[in-house]
Amino acid sequence: MADKGKKLDDLFLDTLKDIYFAEKQILRALPKMAKAAVSDDLRKAFEDHHGETEGQVQRLERVFELIDKPARGKTCEAIQGLVEEGKEIMEDFEGSDALDAGLVSAAQAVEHYEIARYGTLKTWAQQLGLKEAVGLLDKNLQEEKKADELLNRLAMSSVNKKAA
Amino acid sequence: MADKGKKLDDLFLDTLKDIYFAEKQILRALPKMAKAAVSDDLRKAFEDHHGETEGQVQRLERVFELIDKPARGKTCEAIQGLVEEGKEIMEDFEGSDALDAGLVSAAQAVEHYEIARYGTLKTWAQQLGLKEAVGLLDKNLQEEKKADELLNRLAMSSVNKKAA
Repeated sequence: MADKGKKLDDLFLDTLKDIYFAEKQILRALPKMAKAAVSDDLRKAFEDHHGETEGQVQRLERVFELIDKPARGKTCEAIQGLVEEGKEIMEDFEGSDALDAGLVSAAQAVEHYEIARYGTLKTWAQQLGLKEAVGLLDKNLQEEKKADELLNRLAMSSVNKKAA
Repeated sequence: MADKGKKLDDLFLDTLKDIYFAEKQILRALPKMAKAAVSDDLRKAFEDHHGETEGQVQRLERVFELIDKPARGKTCEAIQGLVEEGKEIMEDFEGSDALDAGLVSAAQAVEHYEIARYGTLKTWAQQLGLKEAVGLLDKNLQEEKKADELLNRLAMSSVNKKAA
């Protein structure tokens, strides 16, 4: 239902719930991806990012606190689709040399989703004057960018060469 | 069904079909987003990107040709989720000052999906020795990055200030 009174703070809360839901889905998907990974480097990258993601969830909970709202997720169809695509790759390429390349690809699509969301949330937090939230969201944003760069390096080096 | 013989060229074709499907969905979504946009700058950005997307679809069709495969999409649940989220924003924020901020956010999530996919496809095309495809995919990648930067500028300037 359209509500003309809805403003940027509503949009901020909606999107915060969306990424909170997404991070929780990612927490569940990462151990499966680590288990499926063939190369040690890729498995370690997924394991490390799992620990990082736990910290990101805590930062999001602090942002909910800062705006006096309960930390609650909202179903995010995009992340469900992304996780589903990752699952399909794990099934279709099980035992194949190309599996790791597929896992990297699926993980990078997830990273980019998060980069988009944190970029947006940080901009809005700035415009809403939520100074502490800006710092927390930027921390998550920088971690996702670093995770994406690491996956880039893995894709460029051994992971894909093995598959070709 | 797992197929141990599946290799990087299978992954390349799967992902090419995925982004081809996604671009076609985006072609259908952009005119609706342009119509919904409040600011002239944002409407123009969506209209321009529609034209650009038509060119991207043609480049993808050329890549299919280069690998001797029919240009055919494959349902991509991620883009369906992203487009769905955009629709929800258009409905929930209709008539609100925050609508444009929401549209920019939805569009940036789509751009980042494409950036991830084209980055992956370009890397794989390099590893598969598909020289002409590398150039075509890089062209699409650079256009998506530029579109994302333009949306960033719009988000930073007028679009969100109005909503706050």
